[in-house]
Order: sequence, then C-alpha cells, then structure tokens
Amino acid sequence: MVISRAKNPKLRVSVLAGGVGAARFLRGLLPLLEEKNLTVIVNTTDDESFFGLHVSPDLDTITYTLAGVANRSRGWGLEKETFHALKALGRYYEDTWFQLGDRDLATHIFRTEALRKGKTLTQVTGEITRAFGLQSTILPMSNQPVRTRIRVAGAGTLAFQDYLVKRRATGQVQSIQLAGIGKAKPAPGVLRALRQSDVILIPPSNPFVSILPILRLPGVRAACQQSGAPIAAVSPLIGGAPIKGPLDRMLSGLGHEVSSSAVAALYRGIANLFVLDRRDATEAEAVKRLGMSPLITNTLLNTPARARRLVAHILSELA
Amino acid sequence: MVISRAKNPKLRVSVLAGGVGAARFLRGLLPLLEEKNLTVIVNTTDDESFFGLHVSPDLDTITYTLAGVANRSRGWGLEKETFHALKALGRYYEDTWFQLGDRDLATHIFRTEALRKGKTLTQVTGEITRAFGLQSTILPMSNQPVRTRIRVAGAGTLAFQDYLVKRRATGQVQSIQLAGIGKAKPAPGVLRALRQSDVILIPPSNPFVSILPILRLPGVRAACQQSGAPIAAVSPLIGGAPIKGPLDRMLSGLGHEVSSSAVAALYRGIANLFVLDRRDATEAEAVKRLGMSPLITNTLLNTPARARRLVAHILSELA
Repeated sequence: MVISRAKNPKLRVSVLAGGVGAARFLRGLLPLLEEKNLTVIVNTTDDESFFGLHVSPDLDTITYTLAGVANRSRGWGLEKETFHALKALGRYYEDTWFQLGDRDLATHIFRTEALRKGKTLTQVTGEITRAFGLQSTILPMSNQPVRTRIRVAGAGTLAFQDYLVKRRATGQVQSIQLAGIGKAKPAPGVLRALRQSDVILIPPSNPFVSILPILRLPGVRAACQQSGAPIAAVSPLIGGAPIKGPLDRMLSGLGHEVSSSAVAALYRGIANLFVLDRRDATEAEAVKRLGMSPLITNTLLNTPARARRLVAHILSELA
Repeated sequence: MVISRAKNPKLRVSVLAGGVGAARFLRGLLPLLEEKNLTVIVNTTDDESFFGLHVSPDLDTITYTLAGVANRSRGWGLEKETFHALKALGRYYEDTWFQLGDRDLATHIFRTEALRKGKTLTQVTGEITRAFGLQSTILPMSNQPVRTRIRVAGAGTLAFQDYLVKRRATGQVQSIQLAGIGKAKPAPGVLRALRQSDVILIPPSNPFVSILPILRLPGVRAACQQSGAPIAAVSPLIGGAPIKGPLDRMLSGLGHEVSSSAVAALYRGIANLFVLDRRDATEAEAVKRLGMSPLITNTLLNTPARARRLVAHILSELA
C-alpha cells in the first residue's frame, strides 16, 4: 500500500490508546485518513467510580478529541467547561479532587445509567460516539473491569487515579498490578479491527498503564500479527523524560532504565518501527538490537501541525 | 401554650409539606420558632428518576428553602443556578424537560449513590440536611416508594412530573392514583414528630398530590390526633383559583367544586382551623359546617413578610 502525506482514502488504521498522549497523536492522524477507517482501542484500566458514576477517562479523552471538543490545554475534559456541580458535590463529599466538569458529567451520568440497565461498555461507548456524530470506531479494550493498582512506598496499593491525581504521582513506585486482567477478554470488535488493519499505531502513551494492558488481553498480540500490518510505536520520552506524567518514576521504580530504548524493549515482538525523538538519537542502535527499525524525528506533539507531520512521517515509513 | 408573634422558643411545630406552596409558607414560619423545633414531613409521591438519578423535588425544595438557597422566583431549584450539564445531557437523551441545574445535580448524584449503597431516603435526607447545616428535621413521608399517577383524558396514565412539567398540566384529569400507598409506612420519625408537636400546620399545598398522600399513610391521622395539637390548614385557593399549579383542574376533574370549602372538606376530621383568603370569606359558613373554625385573612404569600404575618396570625389563633 502506498501511503501519502495527504489523506489516504482506503487506509484502515487501528490505534491502541491511552489518554492525553494518544489524543495529541490522533490530532495528527485524523487529517490523513477517512474518519470511518479509524478504530481506536482504548485503555480502560484507569476507569474509576466517582460519586457512584462510572468515569472512563481515556475513552472520554479520545471521544472528545475525535469530536474536536476536547480541552487541549488541560489534556482532559471538554473545552469551555465549568465546574459548578463538582463544587456543589463538595458539600456532600470530602474527595472532589477528580475534576469532573458540568458538561463532562453528562457523559458519566449517561454511561452509568446505561451500564446499570445492562448495556456493555462497548455498547455505551458506541452510543456516546454516535451522539457526537463520529464515524470512527472507539472501542473499550474490554468489557470486563481491569484496574491498574500502583504500589507506592509508604502509601500502600493505590487505585490509579488516587495515585495520579490525588497524590500527584508522588512516591516511589514499587509495582503495578492489573487487577482483573486474568479474567478479561478483548471487547467485541477489538480483535477484528486489529486483524483488518493496514497499519497499527501505538501513540506516545505510558506503556505500563495504557498500552501493555491492551496487549495483555488474550488474542490481541496474535491479532496484531495476523493482520500482517506494520506496527509503529512512538516513544513517550523525549530527551529521556516524559512530557507529562509519571512514566520516568514507573520505569525506574520497576527496575528499568529511564530511556526510549527501555520503552522499546517493552514493545519487543510487537512493534516493527520505533519512533525516537532526535534528542534520543543515540538510542537508535539499542532499538535496532531489539529487532525494530528506529525512526528518528521530532516527536513533540504540542501543536496539531507537528502531530500531523510526525504521523505522516511514520505512515510514509510504513509504506 | 401562649404563642407570640415573635420567636416562640419552645414551640414544637410539624409541617406537612409539598413543594412550592410549603416553601413559601415555611419562609413565614422560620422566624417564629427555634430551628431545631421544626419538623417538616415531606411528600415524596412526585419523586422521579431522571437519567438514572433519584430526584426528590419536594424534599429538595424544602431543604433549599430552609437553607436560604432556594430560587424564589422559580419556586424550585437553587438560586444562581446554571444548566450546562442538562444541556449536555441533551446530546444523549431526548427528554430533558425536567430542569436539573448543575448545583442541584450534586444533590441527586449524592442521593442516588447513597440509596444504591443501601441507605434509606430518611438517612440520605438527614445527611443532606446536615450538609446544609440545618438544625430542623426534614423527613420524607415514607421510605417506600409511593408515586402519583394522573389519568388524563386522551393521554392515559401519567407519572406526576410527566403530567405537571412535560405536559404542563394540560388535559382533563380523570383520576389520581397513589401507586404503592398500600405497602407504604410512615418513615422513621414521622409519627413521633407528629405526636410531640405543639402545633401541626398544613401549608397552602395541593391536597391531592402533596398532603393527602402523607395523611393516608397508616398511623399518621392517629398520631395527629394523639398529639392533642391544634391543626391548621391553609387553603391553596385564593379567589377560587390556585396561585400556581393544576389544583383547579384536579378538583373539577375529580368531581369537586373548585372552592376553598371543597379543599376544607378534604381535611375534615383533621384540621381544626381552616384559613381562607379574604376573597373567599363567603365560604366561612361552609367551613364551619365541616366542623372547622374558619380564619379569614390575607393568604397570598408572595413576600416573606406576608408569609410571616400569615403564620403569626395562625399561631396566635391556635394559642
């Protein structure tokens, strides 16, 4: 398949996604393919219940991003958001550290009611996607609950949002568990989308808490291979440090080097192409030794134009 | 007991309450007694589930009124309210005619979660009351669901909010049913509060959908009598018409005269004193024939000062 830097009308792409990093990456991908040919398979291990509402942070970030209504400066939630309900919830609850906006709440209320009525997360996600008029497919990785638990020195085992948002990712990470992963299956549509992909992309997301949970679901790695599609992963580190988030602390806490090649090693046997920032060019050799082709370019995605250049560069390498 | 028009430090008062009419009346009562000596027993037959959230319109109107944060011009909800979440819910739901404000939503979210966790409506109401720092007691009439169903010509049987808000109370009322009334018991505290009352007051509320449901609960009438307390009811009609709401249509639809004495007849054997507006003075004789003392005064409660004058007048009559 010939891939151009303009729109590729027939290119079918699956993206394994976390939240913020994937959102930035997707803004670069969207102009390059038909909306209906995009499937985003989204991490659900940081889903959490707040005030009895089922919140799926990564699913919502991806939905709002594809709909063009995400708040870009914050990286989560909706643009032009207000927080009146959350402030009022503070009258009833001590913990209002998870910032749920008024408009965003509508999504959680809808999802919660639909799940209570017996719909699956896949079905609800489809309804939300359609409510936003999206033609792309957004799939939760699984309809079974899988939850990231972070063991932090001196703090015990924390739910992911407790660790990331409430504790602001402080403390030494000792281990990361995926509660429920043993019983979880890929959600309907996940394996088929992967098998039918022309290209599979892994954005600069946190491997431990966003991408590897998807890859650990039974059949996902096999489906990636069966697709015959080239698989490209983008390092979430630039100059050896994450743009945002606690990946450096997770890597070191779990005994890895804090480097792009250490991330590449986590995708060994999965990714064919591994994208490094120019500042990490010296790691290209280490990436090669892992059996992947290194692609050295600018990976900072702080503008849609940069994101588009990066994704176009990746697609042209895969052609 | 001597009752003065100033604050009565020992007077224990129970009020049977619906929503808007009771709220206006309570604004007149509050300055006349110690907050802790007030118990409001609140109708729950117009409770409804919206978007999976348990909404108790009358309980909230009373709570917000006692807290001084109710929106007085609308008669429901909170002052300085916004509706961003509701507008966003319109993306997912067709029916967003029930106006839930952003700050108000916090109450429904909290109540819903607490009920799902197994708390009773009494317990949740107590927690909400305390969250607002109130010292008065607000009690739901029952912890069992009782729901008003209105049979309307050409429209079938409607849930109360469907009839009142969605259809704006149009159509001829054929009957009013209280689904669940046969299995409902008074909520904990209701009978005791009534028995310990020095005065029991029935505000100018709709008898069919606010007051009679409370009086129909087993033991409520007996507790009123056991209290030995004088019971005063205020006519919700002025000049033969309701200030707001469909009471006239309900009275005529159910075969009653549309008059204050027809309302008084509904409280026969309960109320000792029945308060009529000056414009309905000619009905005093009919009220007397029902075995009640008529009190003729100004019953329009459109300002807190007028409400206070009315309540003080009633209390002085009961002394």
